[in-house]
Amino acid sequence: MSLTPELRAALAAVSSATIHTILLKQGIRRTFMTGPQSLTGSTDRFVGEAFTLRFVPAREDVATPASWGNPISTRAAIEEMPAGVIVVADAMGVRDAGIFGDILAVRMAKRVVVGLVTDGTMRDRVGVLASGLPIWCAGIAAPSSVNGLTFVGWQEPIGCGGVAVFPGDIIVADGDGAICIPAAQVERVAKEGPEQELFEAWLVGEVEKGEKLPGLYPPNEENKARYAAWRAKK
Amino acid sequence: MSLTPELRAALAAVSSATIHTILLKQGIRRTFMTGPQSLTGSTDRFVGEAFTLRFVPAREDVATPASWGNPISTRAAIEEMPAGVIVVADAMGVRDAGIFGDILAVRMAKRVVVGLVTDGTMRDRVGVLASGLPIWCAGIAAPSSVNGLTFVGWQEPIGCGGVAVFPGDIIVADGDGAICIPAAQVERVAKEGPEQELFEAWLVGEVEKGEKLPGLYPPNEENKARYAAWRAKK
Amino acid sequence: MSLTPELRAALAAVSSATIHTILLKQGIRRTFMTGPQSLTGSTDRFVGEAFTLRFVPAREDVATPASWGNPISTRAAIEEMPAGVIVVADAMGVRDAGIFGDILAVRMAKRVVVGLVTDGTMRDRVGVLASGLPIWCAGIAAPSSVNGLTFVGWQEPIGCGGVAVFPGDIIVADGDGAICIPAAQVERVAKEGPEQELFEAWLVGEVEKGEKLPGLYPPNEENKARYAAWRAKK
Amino acid sequence: MSLTPELRAALAAVSSATIHTILLKQGIRRTFMTGPQSLTGSTDRFVGEAFTLRFVPAREDVATPASWGNPISTRAAIEEMPAGVIVVADAMGVRDAGIFGDILAVRMAKRVVVGLVTDGTMRDRVGVLASGLPIWCAGIAAPSSVNGLTFVGWQEPIGCGGVAVFPGDIIVADGDGAICIPAAQVERVAKEGPEQELFEAWLVGEVEKGEKLPGLYPPNEENKARYAAWRAKK
Amino acid sequence: MSLTPELRAALAAVSSATIHTILLKQGIRRTFMTGPQSLTGSTDRFVGEAFTLRFVPAREDVATPASWGNPISTRAAIEEMPAGVIVVADAMGVRDAGIFGDILAVRMAKRVVVGLVTDGTMRDRVGVLASGLPIWCAGIAAPSSVNGLTFVGWQEPIGCGGVAVFPGDIIVADGDGAICIPAAQVERVAKEGPEQELFEAWLVGEVEKGEKLPGLYPPNEENKARYAAWRAKK
Amino acid sequence: MSLTPELRAALAAVSSATIHTILLKQGIRRTFMTGPQSLTGSTDRFVGEAFTLRFVPAREDVATPASWGNPISTRAAIEEMPAGVIVVADAMGVRDAGIFGDILAVRMAKRVVVGLVTDGTMRDRVGVLASGLPIWCAGIAAPSSVNGLTFVGWQEPIGCGGVAVFPGDIIVADGDGAICIPAAQVERVAKEGPEQELFEAWLVGEVEKGEKLPGLYPPNEENKARYAAWRAKK
Repeated sequence: MSLTPELRAALAAVSSATIHTILLKQGIRRTFMTGPQSLTGSTDRFVGEAFTLRFVPAREDVATPASWGNPISTRAAIEEMPAGVIVVADAMGVRDAGIFGDILAVRMAKRVVVGLVTDGTMRDRVGVLASGLPIWCAGIAAPSSVNGLTFVGWQEPIGCGGVAVFPGDIIVADGDGAICIPAAQVERVAKEGPEQELFEAWLVGEVEKGEKLPGLYPPNEENKARYAAWRAKK
Repeated sequence: MSLTPELRAALAAVSSATIHTILLKQGIRRTFMTGPQSLTGSTDRFVGEAFTLRFVPAREDVATPASWGNPISTRAAIEEMPAGVIVVADAMGVRDAGIFGDILAVRMAKRVVVGLVTDGTMRDRVGVLASGLPIWCAGIAAPSSVNGLTFVGWQEPIGCGGVAVFPGDIIVADGDGAICIPAAQVERVAKEGPEQELFEAWLVGEVEKGEKLPGLYPPNEENKARYAAWRAKK
Repeated sequence: MSLTPELRAALAAVSSATIHTILLKQGIRRTFMTGPQSLTGSTDRFVGEAFTLRFVPAREDVATPASWGNPISTRAAIEEMPAGVIVVADAMGVRDAGIFGDILAVRMAKRVVVGLVTDGTMRDRVGVLASGLPIWCAGIAAPSSVNGLTFVGWQEPIGCGGVAVFPGDIIVADGDGAICIPAAQVERVAKEGPEQELFEAWLVGEVEKGEKLPGLYPPNEENKARYAAWRAKK
Repeated sequence: MSLTPELRAALAAVSSATIHTILLKQGIRRTFMTGPQSLTGSTDRFVGEAFTLRFVPAREDVATPASWGNPISTRAAIEEMPAGVIVVADAMGVRDAGIFGDILAVRMAKRVVVGLVTDGTMRDRVGVLASGLPIWCAGIAAPSSVNGLTFVGWQEPIGCGGVAVFPGDIIVADGDGAICIPAAQVERVAKEGPEQELFEAWLVGEVEKGEKLPGLYPPNEENKARYAAWRAKK
Repeated sequence: MSLTPELRAALAAVSSATIHTILLKQGIRRTFMTGPQSLTGSTDRFVGEAFTLRFVPAREDVATPASWGNPISTRAAIEEMPAGVIVVADAMGVRDAGIFGDILAVRMAKRVVVGLVTDGTMRDRVGVLASGLPIWCAGIAAPSSVNGLTFVGWQEPIGCGGVAVFPGDIIVADGDGAICIPAAQVERVAKEGPEQELFEAWLVGEVEKGEKLPGLYPPNEENKARYAAWRAKK
Repeated sequence: MSLTPELRAALAAVSSATIHTILLKQGIRRTFMTGPQSLTGSTDRFVGEAFTLRFVPAREDVATPASWGNPISTRAAIEEMPAGVIVVADAMGVRDAGIFGDILAVRMAKRVVVGLVTDGTMRDRVGVLASGLPIWCAGIAAPSSVNGLTFVGWQEPIGCGGVAVFPGDIIVADGDGAICIPAAQVERVAKEGPEQELFEAWLVGEVEKGEKLPGLYPPNEENKARYAAWRAKK
């Protein structure tokens, strides 16, 4: 997936909630990652191509501090990250090992990584927050990654929060969490998403005016016409 | 249960923690819903009669966006909600489907629903918070309800957070979460609750003065007398 | 373990993340408690000798409000707590019973308890926060301890958040959570910890300057020399 | 759904595994109940219309032995069961309460109930097995239903093992567990199922002869033709 | 609790299911251990006074093979076990550490231990079965206890499968699992239990004759009289 | 790892329990897979080099029946399996998708695969058992793999049952379950294992004669000498 500036801008205006609905209407339901939530509580939205990291469980003979210097290591992976990506790390939901701390977060920020999404945890809360890197994770834990995880590679297909993520898929993360748009669906989402957001804004306005839900959402013919008229004036 | 203004006011002065203790002394232990917590972190307290909603798991042939227009739908249920109720939604603890988003939250607020309690999640964090509806839930997820749930009815007995809730029970929700007062226990709670709160306030004061716990809480005869004297002056 | 003021001061300068790494290098991995997190979200760090509390599951004939007056009770345990300890309560991860509320929290604060760590929950959020006692817990629940727990003793070996804690071990709790330093490891941690923190501060500085990770962390010979030179100037 | 003898016979020849594949090809994935397994380990297959039972969590004021005599009780429900149904009980996966023991199992067998499926547990293992009623459950537990459950009704939509079941759906249970065929899909399954079983029998035969998988399953044109020839001779 | 031969014999005739019902009618619900099931699948019943063992989580500095020779060790505990007890081991539900293997099982059998109940797992399936010791456990795992557990003592209050067990309580284990009778309730159970079993046997007989459930179980006045007449002839 | 016939024979005489203890003494604890158990309940032991399979979660656009014909498919992987391996499949513990049914099990048996280990489930219980392939799995489920899983590759590092498994590691599976011997540890295990089994056999014999545990296991000097004498006669 080549994420053009136009696609990036279009997606930045579409909530993860709306994206999920568009994909569900295509029969694709398993796209929202359960577990990762914004570490700061921010509701800002970020968009990027997925750059995947993969861990397997720790084994004491291979998951050691010495392994951090291996050719296959999180350090090496970080140096391969292009600017603009969102890193998605498959930590198998492990909660007793922080996959990254301040040093690696700072380096990712330096490499202009847009954000980090993981179903695992981070460590060094203070330092990680200071890095400014936008992070969606399942919590904080003091131990280093090797306490519970062995790093095995990058840019492979992974699972994260119950969702299959392939390199080239597009990630959108906001105040509801992180969603994976399959590469083949990105143009559809970029096209339908802003329209759907507009319709929902109209709906909220109608409800605020006191309209009842039945017939409004989903709309009956009358309300479809009312919306079309409103839409035409935009 | 008819929740008179007097009962409502009395209960508003009793914490969910104190309510639980009063019910436990009656042998009723399973009344506190595990999972729902205030979405905003507010510690304000709300009281209302339970209006129940019931979901079963999603099945792709029935849990569809088209189902939102069915006669049995969350939309229809919302239009049946009387002012002053607290909605309790049995989402079976499902975490990958937001039961409601901004549009429905705004409509519930319009209908003067007092609050919403669910063991599931909400979607559209930004819009839901903007609605002003007080919400106790188990988290946020971008997908719509049909991703994980099929709506099947309202004002039926349900389970929520491990607690049986019947229409007519009274819900109190505050900074500790949400508790269900069986309808037959409401008058007792409204009567004993404020007294218990007064006693606990006295206890905190005594402990702040440096009193030791044994003999004070639970109180021995001497401390019962001291409290009685203090109480008499109120 | 006698926690001298010197040891206490040294440990206060070492993050729980760094402590874990030092212990892991000794082959001791299971020291970080999964579940307890700061109730206020504070990232302040606290250090104290472990004072342990032990619960077993509730049984309706023994876990009663009347049991609060027993010789073996949380009240009695609190009166045995020396100043300066961190209380660690084994609540077996139970989420439907708050182990302590405001009254007991205020009393612990009066006794100059440094903090409370539990894999269970607290109750009376408002009152507990008002007590000022630093707390790491797994959440908030309105029910009292006897709803889910029977208190059976203090200063025994316990498990908390998946970690074995013995009286005399040292607890450090901060923004990442709570870690247990086995008594025999405290001097090592107090000695190596501040050095490691210094090294990591240098690393962060280097990365902020744009240094790449491979060769830097872990350091190759060149970077070891650069750090030694920097360190020598401190 | 009217389950004719013809449909019943056709479905009895189709494995739950094959049924799932047929439904999945229609986009209906969530039909297999996770949890219920044959209590005896039998691999026999049973077919029946779903007769649903619904429980909510226990509450000590309503979930009592006295409640067994209520108009809404498991006893009353059993007397409403027509011959030939498979009872599906939504026990919310609760493991500390046996929904039925020997007495009720014997009564269901007397009423010519075909089988019982639940995501909860049974009690009185010896007596329940002696009843001869085919049972798929998630285990055995000594406590009675009221220990963990409150019975609230029958022939309502329910969830069981993560699957939505509506009265009128058809249940097939065998050595792999229990599956729910939505009423609208029964004829399709009864028609396609036996064909699919025939094809799979041919496949197993081919593999036993030493055929490789690629090109065989799924079949390429050559193998489709070979199968068609084999099929024509049947 | 002194378990006289008379009490032992009386309890041996009462199922764990019936015991639970008797205790529940006293308001004591949490007595059945969730997790332990007969390792052989036997439905034989065993009765004994509880002899408790307590584990906390493993920590690599103390949970070592060398610790097996400590004064506080499972070996030392076994040598303290009186004949006739049922050992109940609190393994906190840990599934990756077998608390005992063949050698210790054989030694317990030699000491005329009646049975072993744990919410953890056993190791050495073949050898443990060969020992003939009746065992209720939550599964089998190859690792030794120190892989996940640290042994800390015996004859202390413990939790097992969600139930509080105190030394002196009586354990009954059969085909439904294991239940704890609080010491103060043993005489009641021994007295009411056999009567209840007789009544249930009559009920099963009536249902087998074709009686309907309502009015029979629980019995109305007519059926109470019929049972009384039947009972009088016994 | 080249698994010579000598190594294979040596390992076949060592239980998974003993293997775990030998590895634990090397500081390697996480080697036993939690979840997989023998499908037939057999206690036979099998040894083979690990051949790994990797799944990620299902996504409806890629996990389809059509995907079974892809170049990267379980079918293609099976045709790559050398004789004598034990297949280890990372199914992430998913329980609602059987990774293989009868057709693929028969093909694996044809390819002289020694066994299959997975933390997921199998489907087609009857057919899979008929294939004769020894299987350790976490249960049975009717749905096909694509219901919950997407197959992504073979002979990669994986996690299975909480254990890291690399191609070339050696798997031993028996009545206790399945363990992974890191390639670098195989010779040690093959050498020490049979000796340890002999020692344990002697221990069991001593305990059966009535020996007490303290001083015997672990052995004191006297018992070490007694064992040495016994060993010398073998």
